[in-house]
Amino acid sequence: MNLTRLFDPGTVAVVGASTDERKIGYEAMANAVEFDGRVYPVNPSAEGSVLGEEFVPSVADVDEPVDLALLCVPGPVVPDVLEECGEADVGGAVIYAGGFAEAGEEGEALQERIVEVAAAGDVALLGPNTSGFVVPRSNLLASFASGVEGFRPGNVAILAQSGGVAHQLAFQALREGRGISAMVGLGNRANVGFEEAIDYFDGDAATGAIVLHVEGTDDGRSLLETCRAAETPVVAYKVGQSDVGEFAESHTGALTGDHDLYTAGFAQYGVPTVGSTSALLDAGLALANSPAPGGANVGVVTAQAGPGIIVADRLQRAGATLPELSEDTQERVEEVLPGITFADNPVDTGRPMPEFGELIETVAADDAVDVVLVYELFEEALGFPVDALDGLAERVGKPVLFASEGPPGAMDDELAALREAGVPTFTSPERAAEATALLARYAGLGDGAAEAEVSADV
Amino acid sequence: MNLTRLFDPGTVAVVGASTDERKIGYEAMANAVEFDGRVYPVNPSAEGSVLGEEFVPSVADVDEPVDLALLCVPGPVVPDVLEECGEADVGGAVIYAGGFAEAGEEGEALQERIVEVAAAGDVALLGPNTSGFVVPRSNLLASFASGVEGFRPGNVAILAQSGGVAHQLAFQALREGRGISAMVGLGNRANVGFEEAIDYFDGDAATGAIVLHVEGTDDGRSLLETCRAAETPVVAYKVGQSDVGEFAESHTGALTGDHDLYTAGFAQYGVPTVGSTSALLDAGLALANSPAPGGANVGVVTAQAGPGIIVADRLQRAGATLPELSEDTQERVEEVLPGITFADNPVDTGRPMPEFGELIETVAADDAVDVVLVYELFEEALGFPVDALDGLAERVGKPVLFASEGPPGAMDDELAALREAGVPTFTSPERAAEATALLARYAGLGDGAAEAEVSADV
Repeated sequence: MNLTRLFDPGTVAVVGASTDERKIGYEAMANAVEFDGRVYPVNPSAEGSVLGEEFVPSVADVDEPVDLALLCVPGPVVPDVLEECGEADVGGAVIYAGGFAEAGEEGEALQERIVEVAAAGDVALLGPNTSGFVVPRSNLLASFASGVEGFRPGNVAILAQSGGVAHQLAFQALREGRGISAMVGLGNRANVGFEEAIDYFDGDAATGAIVLHVEGTDDGRSLLETCRAAETPVVAYKVGQSDVGEFAESHTGALTGDHDLYTAGFAQYGVPTVGSTSALLDAGLALANSPAPGGANVGVVTAQAGPGIIVADRLQRAGATLPELSEDTQERVEEVLPGITFADNPVDTGRPMPEFGELIETVAADDAVDVVLVYELFEEALGFPVDALDGLAERVGKPVLFASEGPPGAMDDELAALREAGVPTFTSPERAAEATALLARYAGLGDGAAEAEVSADV
Repeated sequence: MNLTRLFDPGTVAVVGASTDERKIGYEAMANAVEFDGRVYPVNPSAEGSVLGEEFVPSVADVDEPVDLALLCVPGPVVPDVLEECGEADVGGAVIYAGGFAEAGEEGEALQERIVEVAAAGDVALLGPNTSGFVVPRSNLLASFASGVEGFRPGNVAILAQSGGVAHQLAFQALREGRGISAMVGLGNRANVGFEEAIDYFDGDAATGAIVLHVEGTDDGRSLLETCRAAETPVVAYKVGQSDVGEFAESHTGALTGDHDLYTAGFAQYGVPTVGSTSALLDAGLALANSPAPGGANVGVVTAQAGPGIIVADRLQRAGATLPELSEDTQERVEEVLPGITFADNPVDTGRPMPEFGELIETVAADDAVDVVLVYELFEEALGFPVDALDGLAERVGKPVLFASEGPPGAMDDELAALREAGVPTFTSPERAAEATALLARYAGLGDGAAEAEVSADV
């Protein structure tokens, strides 16, 4: 199944578009008109225009091929509308309505029917029972939620089984100043499931990492094989360690299955797993913006001992190691900063200082170090060592991550400059350490050198 | 030891105040002048004024009693300055300098000396080797860090062994829109240790919960007994589960000790423990703003199933239970919202709706429910049920917590309104669930009904 017309359309139709602001057909239209390409409101019983666009009675009446149709119609009407879509050569459709496989036998039959119709018409279906998707770089807001126009373009693709979780993750990314290549709520996965979506975003040049929210799927092996086949790093958050089965099944019609089996399966197939939405976003950020690490040895440079101890503690608990630095490095550190507080790993300068950037570069150059994690509370007079960090990961061929905290305002501008330079940044020492350790674990997952360790974390 | 003059002074002296902006004596003075009371710059070799205040040669020359002296002088000079302070009847002093017990034998001797001098002069010492403390409600910025003037008054006291971690926690609280009654970095704890500080803030009317960052202490039992004796809820984050001993000792001269012993000890003495800085702040927020829960039964109301499943999953993993709602409640829920998506616990409305507040009140009134957790993604047209949540915890005598995510701007205004109403708010489903479960565990800690469960979390 080719999803290019679904996720990268030239033309969009909003079927069931409405001028009634209380209706989803208005909300979806209001978002859709932000799209860089053409958008047609479709409604056989409406006249005139909505949000500046003339109503069209049917997708068949649009005088160019419609790539993507957003279906703002009730569930029982969906089969007929989909049939029209197929006849009009629509490439993909989003079905927002619920009342399908998640809602008992009748709904299951309805879902089977739309899968048949979609197959006959060769239409890729997102949903049903989803709040849709967003591709920020083309301003494609195929979601009816408010505020999604704020999402920033980036290189992490969010693929969530739940539309609500997709939005939660994307809004959290926005809150933390991070961009996304796409946010997709899969919903009931009638014919576009995890496999099809992963395949598509694996081939998307703008996507550097794929993060998955998984409640459950009937064919776990197929999901795992797709993840393994992807060249793009994939990381997963499997929900449902405790008993949420009945509630989850009522949600997207999925069985949550055995959590331990999923976790072991993901590890075996080279997919690191995490234990929270925050950790999922952090892992995506780290994987999408880092060279592949050569091993699990982390060099820590900190400007304050207390947070440095937290970081060193958490790194080790999460499966990373803190190697001794080479004699050369230790000498160089003492040269740069005579009488330094703690010159082994972590290197601790005690407080921010002008030499901090040089120390980071020194530690990053040590052959014993596979990954670099920097912690520095913001000090207004000094700012962050942006120049030293800009491009450092490429120069040394190792991941370099940065964590900080401090007053909003000046600090947030400097953090933005680091993000602009492609440095994964964090404001929690534990979240930074977990993301760093995940990179370290990822280095070992392919060759069986390390077990995936899942903490209930961050 | 009475710490009132240290933490709630009428008059402050900055000893070693300087006009040189690169010096800590300037930075500390620049912060100190924000104080609501009088501030005197003290420096025997300076003339004129700094930041509008006339230099005074010595604390003895200030023509009113100095309650608090901020010592911006090098370590070796501290004993003499402290002696002057004692003679001038200064009540408390902050020692920013390092080079004491954390720095080998010579430093240990120096620290012993200042403890003797302080005892002779009856001066309460914060530090040495700390970045100080802040009390936002009196604008008392006894820290040399930049940006601390932004901290907001609130009811959680942060007591951290590390000055860096104290600032990290306080800045994070600020970033998340939360207030603090005080932020204290204890440093080497020469004569004001955990015990003295906990005692003081237990008696502070503005403090509703005390959160502790602990690297290690020589007398664990004394710390535990102080926590148990406090009427104010205390929660602890003990760092050092993995091997960070050498680095930690170089930091504040403390031994990290056996992590499991600490955790078991805290549980036995009724102190819940957490596994991260974020979880520590969340626990403080929940404890300071909630009635004591009667048990571990959590009623969940959610407007979106996906995040609701995450919440239900995490609650149960963290030791809370989700009771069945009474038949009365279920009938009432169906009455309020016929055909609701999921009417058991969690109650799931599928999306935000005008009846959401009424449903929350219905679940909160159920006798089977000890704690209420609400999740709702923000929808601009509806906003949050602020009216229903305002005062609900007091009306039902149960903790009521709220979690959400959505576009900054409109949502953040509504979240601020909820915080203003005293509702603990969160933007991560897992963090909200962990804080809720901590309240549930806290209910059982006193009577041995529940084991404290520490997740490596959030």
